[in-house]
Amino acid sequence: MAFWGRLRAHQVFGADTDVGKTIFATGLALATAACPRDGTPLAERVAYLKPVSTGPAHEADASETLIQFADPVSPHLAAVHATGALPPNATDAAIAQQVRAWLDRCAHPDAHGTAFDAAIVETAGGVHSPAPSGTSQADLLRPLRLPVVLIGSSQLGGISTTRAALESLRMRGYDVDAVLLFPSPRYQNDTYLQQLLRDELNLPVFAVGGPSAQGWGAPPMRAAHSADDVAQMRTYYHGLVHGTDEHPGLLPVVRHLRERHTARHAELTTLAPRTYAQCWWPFTQHTRYTPDDVMAIDSAHGDTFAVYDHDALRPVVDGSASWWTQCVGHAHPRLTSAAAYAAGRYGHVLFPGAANAPALQLTERLLGRTPHSFRAPGHWADRVFFSDDGSTGMEVALKMALQSAVRRYEPQPATAATHARIAPGREAGGLGGRPRREWQVLGLQGSYHGDTIGAMDACEPSIYSEHVAWYRGRGQWLAPPTLHMRAGRVEVQLPAALCTDGAQTATYASLDDVYDVAHRLEHDTLATHYRAALNDTLERLVLVEGHRFGALVLEPLVMGAGGMVFVDPLFQRVLVDVVRAREDLFAQRDAPLRTPVPHTPHAPGAWRGLPVVFDEVFTGLFRLGAASAAEVLGTTPDIACFAKILSGGVVPLSVTLATEDIFATFASSPEKTHALLHGHSYTAHPVGCAVANETLAILDTLHAQGAWHTHQRAWGRVWSFWDRAFVEQLSHHERVTSAMALGTVLKIELADAHQGYASNAAASLLEELRTHGVHLRPLGNVVYVMCSLTTPADVLDAVQTRLLAALS
Amino acid sequence: MAFWGRLRAHQVFGADTDVGKTIFATGLALATAACPRDGTPLAERVAYLKPVSTGPAHEADASETLIQFADPVSPHLAAVHATGALPPNATDAAIAQQVRAWLDRCAHPDAHGTAFDAAIVETAGGVHSPAPSGTSQADLLRPLRLPVVLIGSSQLGGISTTRAALESLRMRGYDVDAVLLFPSPRYQNDTYLQQLLRDELNLPVFAVGGPSAQGWGAPPMRAAHSADDVAQMRTYYHGLVHGTDEHPGLLPVVRHLRERHTARHAELTTLAPRTYAQCWWPFTQHTRYTPDDVMAIDSAHGDTFAVYDHDALRPVVDGSASWWTQCVGHAHPRLTSAAAYAAGRYGHVLFPGAANAPALQLTERLLGRTPHSFRAPGHWADRVFFSDDGSTGMEVALKMALQSAVRRYEPQPATAATHARIAPGREAGGLGGRPRREWQVLGLQGSYHGDTIGAMDACEPSIYSEHVAWYRGRGQWLAPPTLHMRAGRVEVQLPAALCTDGAQTATYASLDDVYDVAHRLEHDTLATHYRAALNDTLERLVLVEGHRFGALVLEPLVMGAGGMVFVDPLFQRVLVDVVRAREDLFAQRDAPLRTPVPHTPHAPGAWRGLPVVFDEVFTGLFRLGAASAAEVLGTTPDIACFAKILSGGVVPLSVTLATEDIFATFASSPEKTHALLHGHSYTAHPVGCAVANETLAILDTLHAQGAWHTHQRAWGRVWSFWDRAFVEQLSHHERVTSAMALGTVLKIELADAHQGYASNAAASLLEELRTHGVHLRPLGNVVYVMCSLTTPADVLDAVQTRLLAALS
Repeated sequence: MAFWGRLRAHQVFGADTDVGKTIFATGLALATAACPRDGTPLAERVAYLKPVSTGPAHEADASETLIQFADPVSPHLAAVHATGALPPNATDAAIAQQVRAWLDRCAHPDAHGTAFDAAIVETAGGVHSPAPSGTSQADLLRPLRLPVVLIGSSQLGGISTTRAALESLRMRGYDVDAVLLFPSPRYQNDTYLQQLLRDELNLPVFAVGGPSAQGWGAPPMRAAHSADDVAQMRTYYHGLVHGTDEHPGLLPVVRHLRERHTARHAELTTLAPRTYAQCWWPFTQHTRYTPDDVMAIDSAHGDTFAVYDHDALRPVVDGSASWWTQCVGHAHPRLTSAAAYAAGRYGHVLFPGAANAPALQLTERLLGRTPHSFRAPGHWADRVFFSDDGSTGMEVALKMALQSAVRRYEPQPATAATHARIAPGREAGGLGGRPRREWQVLGLQGSYHGDTIGAMDACEPSIYSEHVAWYRGRGQWLAPPTLHMRAGRVEVQLPAALCTDGAQTATYASLDDVYDVAHRLEHDTLATHYRAALNDTLERLVLVEGHRFGALVLEPLVMGAGGMVFVDPLFQRVLVDVVRAREDLFAQRDAPLRTPVPHTPHAPGAWRGLPVVFDEVFTGLFRLGAASAAEVLGTTPDIACFAKILSGGVVPLSVTLATEDIFATFASSPEKTHALLHGHSYTAHPVGCAVANETLAILDTLHAQGAWHTHQRAWGRVWSFWDRAFVEQLSHHERVTSAMALGTVLKIELADAHQGYASNAAASLLEELRTHGVHLRPLGNVVYVMCSLTTPADVLDAVQTRLLAALS
Repeated sequence: MAFWGRLRAHQVFGADTDVGKTIFATGLALATAACPRDGTPLAERVAYLKPVSTGPAHEADASETLIQFADPVSPHLAAVHATGALPPNATDAAIAQQVRAWLDRCAHPDAHGTAFDAAIVETAGGVHSPAPSGTSQADLLRPLRLPVVLIGSSQLGGISTTRAALESLRMRGYDVDAVLLFPSPRYQNDTYLQQLLRDELNLPVFAVGGPSAQGWGAPPMRAAHSADDVAQMRTYYHGLVHGTDEHPGLLPVVRHLRERHTARHAELTTLAPRTYAQCWWPFTQHTRYTPDDVMAIDSAHGDTFAVYDHDALRPVVDGSASWWTQCVGHAHPRLTSAAAYAAGRYGHVLFPGAANAPALQLTERLLGRTPHSFRAPGHWADRVFFSDDGSTGMEVALKMALQSAVRRYEPQPATAATHARIAPGREAGGLGGRPRREWQVLGLQGSYHGDTIGAMDACEPSIYSEHVAWYRGRGQWLAPPTLHMRAGRVEVQLPAALCTDGAQTATYASLDDVYDVAHRLEHDTLATHYRAALNDTLERLVLVEGHRFGALVLEPLVMGAGGMVFVDPLFQRVLVDVVRAREDLFAQRDAPLRTPVPHTPHAPGAWRGLPVVFDEVFTGLFRLGAASAAEVLGTTPDIACFAKILSGGVVPLSVTLATEDIFATFASSPEKTHALLHGHSYTAHPVGCAVANETLAILDTLHAQGAWHTHQRAWGRVWSFWDRAFVEQLSHHERVTSAMALGTVLKIELADAHQGYASNAAASLLEELRTHGVHLRPLGNVVYVMCSLTTPADVLDAVQTRLLAALS
């Protein structure tokens, strides 16, 4: 992630200790200086750094060093031996920062107007030797992701250590440009590796050595006299660099590394325009972009993208958690490890009628059969259905809910003979036509459930669906009361339909008060008001207007893509309660003729009124601070959908959870056509499930450790990653209509004549933030920031500071 | 993948050479024999195998060996040194087979009625040391996937080599049960690894050694006299096994391995019933299953699942390519490597307005901007849109096509003022209702495009959609002529609507003839017949019945989920041609009133008549022998969708390709609402794209090498993995109505009174094949087998033999 067009920087890793890493690094530095650029007589300036070095400083060593420990053991021991604790300049972040600064100096002209052409950063020990903090070397400078020269082992067993080291580097997303090792005529490691790595990775292996009494290879034994030693090493290095006709030396390696740098440069330069010209972005009006607007992401780490810009890679904060998927940061090594393990164990295996361990483990984690420090998001559920994204997961949820409602409320053909007369496909939907009365969903205005047609149909008509020919809004959507922080006050804003007594807002002392749903149900007059209004509305919709409902569908707490709308949780809770209490309405067979379906007593745990579907694709899994946003409502659904964070922000995966009662709708007969005939090829793919299991394990540890406790204290029972004083300050800002923060989400509503999608107020703000290294996604006149669950305080602070600056 | 409930087998890997692997393996064998089972005085019988050994056989070595080379170098050199070529018993398959047979013998009682309790298989060299064939040791016995004991390195740098070795093993899906290494007070490798691996993998590290003059650790130096050597090693091993209070020895390790075996056994025993009780399978009627019917897949490799059955893991051939996704076999190391690299480099990064290299590379590969040995499946396309599975990819395709048709054929509001009067969401679909005339698709009966509502709506009503409340068949579907091999003859069977002259079938000399579409267009009378019939049909549908069409949607060559129906390719080709020629029909504004939309001349490359959508989710990427099934039709679509094989059978990914003309529909104005407002969080996720790139690279190599050439010769220009004589034999079988084979697909239509979904004829056949280690998926009265593109001949032969046996 560190790259400058004019500086060719490489990190040198060793496959093992004692493979000649320093010899090769020194040789490469000498060869670089000795190898003129093509067509010029000019030598290159090369800088050489060992960030951390252990053992006595060697006089012949040409490198610079940031941190030196005298004890020739692993740095994590040397650091403690030397000082008893980790020096402040030897933390992982400090070392990465120092190396980045050193490279930055190399890349830019010094006082004399000259910059370096090449830089070599040599790693201590093997690929996984511990840094002073104990972190693996392979992880230590991963934020820089320098291209790698791997020094392989020419010893017996060296094929194995070299290949294993290479795999560990690749698992961390490094580009390995070359493998160097001493020739090994006896073991032929070089020959073997050359063929293997050319075939599999197009990666060249250079077998290079210098002259010694044993032939061309490793350096000679140390001479008895120091002067002799210097002389023989000078000869050795000259041979290592320049070689002979028979032994090529390191000059071809330098030329190869230059070619790779040129190729990488060309790739970075063209990544944006080629993508612009050939890819079709999701949810994007291409004509609003030029190639220069494209964010060319070279790689990512933690909360940061490395973005190619002005001929260098620059760190940019991923302020939308990559479309709300990130929770433990990009490229987390444990998630990579879990994905690789599952890919290596299964690849994918089909799921119908079958079982695989990662899918079962995930099922049991979600249902709470496995102990966690938090209440399982599906503790109320009995079954897990897998699909590929939030949209497919919601289609599954809708099929589950609608079929359950149809089964209970639709008059069935009286006899088998009647049934036989109905042609296949005609019973429910009819051939190409619509039934007399549509099965509708009940929902909220502003909700969003995905972009497949079924998921779109569950949302109210909007400019999103305006041009979708097959879109049919199949529902009734109520205007919800919404939550805002305005000038420091916490307000519930009532929609027109709920403003019967003239009051448009209700004010609360704190977010804790608003989110204390149990208390408000008893003591807040809004509860009574909501209950009465919802009963009236439902009676009108069913008895007067004759709508027929098959599901209540909600995003608990926050409607995401609809504008990051914070809904009054009390309203959602009362809505669920009223829907469950009014089976008399939903059982109307032919309203407004008012003939209810005969009442069948329900089994315990059976759904009542309507199947309640919670879309927790965005809200779930701690995005808003709780494992399930439904927890805050103090109720449970009959069906719920999770995705995004579920698979750790690595690969697509979604789950739809359901109660046994819903399941029984589909599994109460031997008829295959009664089953939920939905499936995708990669259903319950082990890679996604394994990553999800590891994600939940990491979140469990963080939760158990109280990793979010400091945030919790600042806010009360509800908590946010965003500083309370900062959010209040925002809510007073003249350009800000309202602010809100919960869990990882910060929302700022900007003052703009144009509400919603048509607003341009946010665009200029986002543009300015982008130039200051923060990337946010537009959402009408709303600006939101979303961090992961591991975003460090300094990143949060920096974003807050930049937001305030950009608003001023 | 080798497991017997009563045999505890482990494979011992070394992190490096010379880490004490044989010492520990011998020690474990001794400790196993010395450690009575809990609560009993009984010793365990332990067997110990070194499958491949190099160097002189050591008299003190207690192990058995299958293959011994005298030269103490890596086996891949020793094999060639010894014999000049690879001995037949030293191929990868032969070694795995011999080890499996050895383990099988261990697991079963011998002539004396005793079986072994434990088995130790020791690997030569480090984890990646080459086997005699050159294959890595980590890959060699991967088909057996024995749980692993990893011997770590206690030397300087040993943390790195141990951790790298562990990662290489995990990338291949091994379960590592324990890490053993000698204590290393100076470097403290044991302490470091203990903490790291407990935290990250819950993996215990045992630091164990025996007594020597240097303290407890590695064995003493060899004594000068042989007798002394034996004595001191006896003392050493006694200490290593039994330890002291201070130095625990290997007995706790044996107890731990027993616990792991017990836990693994419990997991395997409960995998099926727990999945049965808590998961909700796709496309499955649960009531038709008992827990015993569940296929408990422990892992997979190549074409084979390891399935837990009768208290052992048994190899079962994956005869449906895991729902048609597999192409280079399960758990291919190069695909794992690609997935791990992308996960380590990015995790996932959002895609709108952004770029990442794997997505761009895949785009350019698909569009043919990158050289391949085959014609790129999207050589005709200009843009790539990414989504998550075939169903979402087809929803995208439908949106692309319908919006393009609406744009061209729908009368637009005359003025901005008119436009402004139309409320959002009402223009295209109307609020909750259906427009006066539905935009329909034109397709074929029996087609299938996925299970989201939009994709379902593009398919004719069927028992699949009978109970889906929101399903609307929005199209007209024509009955297609189909292709069959019957009693050795190749026949095209005409549907009733095409039997005007009384002939119901046309017979061809070979499949090559049927698939020579260019020749048939000129010379086959059916071409004229199809053309006339299709013109008549379209005129009736549009001018008489007044249907309005927005797309032609086809699965080229074979309709998969609809029953593996082979469609006459000439019919599909003529259909495309006729649709493109009849813009006069599709431009009818208000048929049957017959007022055509004013004709606008099209740009070159523009779609004509209707946007043509090819659903190649199943048919594409060599599944049927060609990179794109459309190639065989000799035409190109305007939009096409690929998935399944695309991502190598590892993780979900799909692409929808389109021409620039289609793209321009959405990118011809700055209006965001004109854009294709469709997207999923993980759009163009780098892991999936990287795996897809690697898959295409592997297929490119196989294609360039003519890997399928032998098959091609047997069949002619079209080819199949299935033996031609075998397929002809099948087509003569009395229980078989017809057979067909193309590419990787073999289809057998069984004689059964019940056609299609309701048929039970296949069920008993599949059940019998399952008991013989071949797993197939049911599809009505059709039995199909689908292999990958690398399935070896012996697997194909075995399946063919078992199929014939099961039919008899």
